[in-house]
Amino acid sequence: MSKIIFDSGISLDGFFAGNGRSPKNPMGGVSGQIHSWMFNQKAFWEYLGFEGGKEDGPDGKFIRETIERTGAFIMGKRMFEEGEASWPNDLYKADVYVLTHEKREPWVQEGTTTFYFINDGIESALDKARKSAKGKDIRIQGGANTIQQFLNAGLVDEFFIHIAPVFLESGIRLFEGINKDKYNLQILEVIPSELTTHLKYKLTKK
Amino acid sequence: MSKIIFDSGISLDGFFAGNGRSPKNPMGGVSGQIHSWMFNQKAFWEYLGFEGGKEDGPDGKFIRETIERTGAFIMGKRMFEEGEASWPNDLYKADVYVLTHEKREPWVQEGTTTFYFINDGIESALDKARKSAKGKDIRIQGGANTIQQFLNAGLVDEFFIHIAPVFLESGIRLFEGINKDKYNLQILEVIPSELTTHLKYKLTKK
Repeated sequence: MSKIIFDSGISLDGFFAGNGRSPKNPMGGVSGQIHSWMFNQKAFWEYLGFEGGKEDGPDGKFIRETIERTGAFIMGKRMFEEGEASWPNDLYKADVYVLTHEKREPWVQEGTTTFYFINDGIESALDKARKSAKGKDIRIQGGANTIQQFLNAGLVDEFFIHIAPVFLESGIRLFEGINKDKYNLQILEVIPSELTTHLKYKLTKK
Repeated sequence: MSKIIFDSGISLDGFFAGNGRSPKNPMGGVSGQIHSWMFNQKAFWEYLGFEGGKEDGPDGKFIRETIERTGAFIMGKRMFEEGEASWPNDLYKADVYVLTHEKREPWVQEGTTTFYFINDGIESALDKARKSAKGKDIRIQGGANTIQQFLNAGLVDEFFIHIAPVFLESGIRLFEGINKDKYNLQILEVIPSELTTHLKYKLTKK
């Protein structure tokens, strides 16, 4: 059965994105600082269909495992709008459900990525993503607010964070207003690396 | 030469203490959640001079190393006031410099702990702590605001955090308003444990 997961990079002070996010300034310009570990990985570039990356150790193994287990994505409207302006074609290689008030026909990309625009809430997106995922996991891609909605609805089974050794000082925090009474958390795995710290948690509803 | 360090437990959402801190409610009542890993350790109880604790693995090794390297402490007035009401005698076994506006004679405890009350700022406390430490490290004990002052003054050489697998939802964050342009950070060591995640960082001034 599909698990609901998320997999996010954050700064050491907990920021998922910087200030002033917009389609012209995806993630508030901090992607290079939070995700630099990823841009170093062969596994990341392989996934995009390019040659690139120098490293192929524990970080790359993590990337491959997360790609392998993911069968569908859910994301918020702001993340989608930023990505629409900057992502390469067929980045997700799966069905992606975008939470939005905008009515829009599915955007079928060349390859295997299709974006569906969902107007009736997170449970509806989840039902549809479950069908797309065919038993693989459903990844809540972001932004932080969308992840917070799923966490606070008690819907998340596992999550992975990558804590970059950098302070950002301000921006949008991943863990802001997370209901403290919703889950018991268990540390599943810690994968040390010189580039970032990978942490896996399992959540059990209280 | 003495390094300036801190060693703090935080929740997964980054909180160092809860809301409503006071001498009657030290740490806002969240110590059990953030520090439960520590209360399980033989090394912690040994240090206090009591029998206690069940575990003696990597977490205990961490505690012993930090105790061994620390030669003096600096703390803020609020932390001291909370501790004065609740700490056992001779908890620190070293000189402790308390940053405060209050003028007060040193409080010499039975054993080897003496609290000194410093009225002229963090650099003055540091000078005095350096003499007390005799080449061992100077630990900025807390609270969060005091640690932030030392971080933003560019004075910290290394720090250790212990990320407990728990959400607290609100309270006082350890990394709040940390100047993003002050340091380059390097991950020194990651010590996985089922109870918490120990991370060591080295800071180099930019």
